[in-house]
Amino acid sequence: MDRPFISLLTDFGLRDPSAAICRGVIAAIAPDAIVVDLSHEVRKYAIRDGALLLWCALPYLPIGVHVAVVDPGVGTERRPIAIRSGRGDVLVGPDNGLLLPALERIGGLAEVRRLGNRDLFLEPVSSSFHGRDVFSPVGAHLAAGVPFEQVGPVLDRATLVELDLPPVRIGDGRLETGVVYVDTFGNVKLAGLVSDLTAALGPLASGDRLALEITGSGAATARTVEVPWALTFGERPAGEPLVYEDSYGRACVAVNQGDAGRQLGLVEDLALTVRRV
Amino acid sequence: MDRPFISLLTDFGLRDPSAAICRGVIAAIAPDAIVVDLSHEVRKYAIRDGALLLWCALPYLPIGVHVAVVDPGVGTERRPIAIRSGRGDVLVGPDNGLLLPALERIGGLAEVRRLGNRDLFLEPVSSSFHGRDVFSPVGAHLAAGVPFEQVGPVLDRATLVELDLPPVRIGDGRLETGVVYVDTFGNVKLAGLVSDLTAALGPLASGDRLALEITGSGAATARTVEVPWALTFGERPAGEPLVYEDSYGRACVAVNQGDAGRQLGLVEDLALTVRRV
Amino acid sequence: MDRPFISLLTDFGLRDPSAAICRGVIAAIAPDAIVVDLSHEVRKYAIRDGALLLWCALPYLPIGVHVAVVDPGVGTERRPIAIRSGRGDVLVGPDNGLLLPALERIGGLAEVRRLGNRDLFLEPVSSSFHGRDVFSPVGAHLAAGVPFEQVGPVLDRATLVELDLPPVRIGDGRLETGVVYVDTFGNVKLAGLVSDLTAALGPLASGDRLALEITGSGAATARTVEVPWALTFGERPAGEPLVYEDSYGRACVAVNQGDAGRQLGLVEDLALTVRRV
Repeated sequence: MDRPFISLLTDFGLRDPSAAICRGVIAAIAPDAIVVDLSHEVRKYAIRDGALLLWCALPYLPIGVHVAVVDPGVGTERRPIAIRSGRGDVLVGPDNGLLLPALERIGGLAEVRRLGNRDLFLEPVSSSFHGRDVFSPVGAHLAAGVPFEQVGPVLDRATLVELDLPPVRIGDGRLETGVVYVDTFGNVKLAGLVSDLTAALGPLASGDRLALEITGSGAATARTVEVPWALTFGERPAGEPLVYEDSYGRACVAVNQGDAGRQLGLVEDLALTVRRV
Repeated sequence: MDRPFISLLTDFGLRDPSAAICRGVIAAIAPDAIVVDLSHEVRKYAIRDGALLLWCALPYLPIGVHVAVVDPGVGTERRPIAIRSGRGDVLVGPDNGLLLPALERIGGLAEVRRLGNRDLFLEPVSSSFHGRDVFSPVGAHLAAGVPFEQVGPVLDRATLVELDLPPVRIGDGRLETGVVYVDTFGNVKLAGLVSDLTAALGPLASGDRLALEITGSGAATARTVEVPWALTFGERPAGEPLVYEDSYGRACVAVNQGDAGRQLGLVEDLALTVRRV
Repeated sequence: MDRPFISLLTDFGLRDPSAAICRGVIAAIAPDAIVVDLSHEVRKYAIRDGALLLWCALPYLPIGVHVAVVDPGVGTERRPIAIRSGRGDVLVGPDNGLLLPALERIGGLAEVRRLGNRDLFLEPVSSSFHGRDVFSPVGAHLAAGVPFEQVGPVLDRATLVELDLPPVRIGDGRLETGVVYVDTFGNVKLAGLVSDLTAALGPLASGDRLALEITGSGAATARTVEVPWALTFGERPAGEPLVYEDSYGRACVAVNQGDAGRQLGLVEDLALTVRRV
């Protein structure tokens, strides 16, 4: 492909003009780029949500530059960084864990650098909008051909801020996990992959009965929900729950044509254990 | 125009990355295409809403490929199809009625085929995300020049799943109809066109008094609302209701600078009859 | 840059197809244009909100055509206009104040014309969707090379409808102002710039204590909130309020990692006075 590819993910929302301003800054620097908005409706300040969306999306996007800004620490000492992936992408954003999980799906981390070359920034750099002044212009310059080495000095990968994720503990017949994301359909994404689930419970067949033990934060919320394993939504009647492998390999609780989060009372950060009934 | 045109309509929402993943898949296959997001905020599983949006929009878009995914039956036996229109478009999506109504506005149905050529799919095909794995890559390959005949075998048009729409019954001085869509301004779209309304009531002039008889599902909701016919919003004071011809030729109830759905208690699927007072 | 640039701002919302139809109309006329959606989620009929978003965004976009449609007067006598800026942009939209404030940031108003050349419209022109039938096609034709002079006759700038904005009164130690916009983070934008604030209060240093006197509409809502001036969000603990200069030079009330609008009860159109404690 001749045209460079840039994706953009933020928590700026679509009512305010911030996301479009980033696109305008990019258009001025890299007018030939194909620019795709991954999402601008990431929950405000939800670094983990943004990281999961990148983890889902990047393997399906062309190799390119991916600018991601969920940045509650803007204006503090948190570092602006760019990471080259094994596949050849460059991820640009804050050093707060946002960029790291996706790397496992696009060839791992090849090199990370601290953004320091102010020729690539939009001056004057504000204290509160680095998406516009730092991350978008650096990303656009990279897409337009500026070599990765010019963004700034190499960082030690060990110094990067890690993302805080719920535990995934594979026990003997039990997977201890938690809810990491509830999507707009109400599908409830667990912290573990289906490979983790089968490591804990053995191979799963359609109709196998599973129990979700919700320990919660007190007796009031503790409860157990029985849900069968299914290969497709259509195996279950409309309105009935299932546990299935979502299209990214993740273990997921859903309701056929319904909203599992609401129907089963499953919310983000809820801890739960999966076992066979 | 040299660049192919692709539109994309889904109920995936804009917070999750699904819609952008479809765009990424398209960008990898058809990087020169102009891609326009028709809407990704179609009400979840609302096939009729998606069909109406396509009916509104397609006549105003360049001839091209239109990928539409409102697909509660994903993972079941419902067929993936592509339809060539008389105008030369190709509509790609599930065989659940979603694609059919728009065809009357772009030259009718010329040919329909079942998607079966797996060379055009993104393998492995998941059970729950055919937007990514089937519809977007097939649409992009078509936009990039793959002949329509290669998507799969011809289907008999008579076998396609029809869309369930409210009745439009033209009586003597009465139009029996229903609410098919309430837009984000609160404008209430009826199932009939203004040509249906005038077939029932005769020619309409600005200020003609109309009665909307809402039969509802019981005596509690039954009521009659009087609303004048108007040619423009501006004929009515701010806050006052009108019946008018919307910009697609559809009969529509609105409130000048207000929200007719909320103000008059008109919701989707409500049955109503229009007559003169 | 060879490719023309078009931005699009409306209050059409992203669920309905109206915004995408505008993009389709543009794609048919100016297929090479880079089109960026500034926002389609402007509050319905909120001309001032749209004007502020344009004021924020346009200086950061490439010089181009900016189509803006927040148009409660569509179908009335309000005039459709195009304004050439000192910088070389053309702003296209209704004559209701929407387009004016941004001009001060892109070189001022060079010339204004009334849209009257129906060769540039999409016929037949509806009474309720001039975004599709007038503003988008005119904007696209301009981007595709039609000279500005061909859109219609010159208007006297003095006849344009002005925008109604809250007052900014610089007093001796007091700035009388009001809330003009609360963004999706809950940051509360005031009518004045920081230059107005320092004209009233003298130079501000990090930690200076300010009082926001909310006069409101009655004794019930009248109250005073003390908030320190800060240079960055990070100077304040998470959850604590600050007054700061936003990334556009505007005086703004925020809460570090929180929602100032909700936390402090600050809503649009609230009148308030800022003084030192």
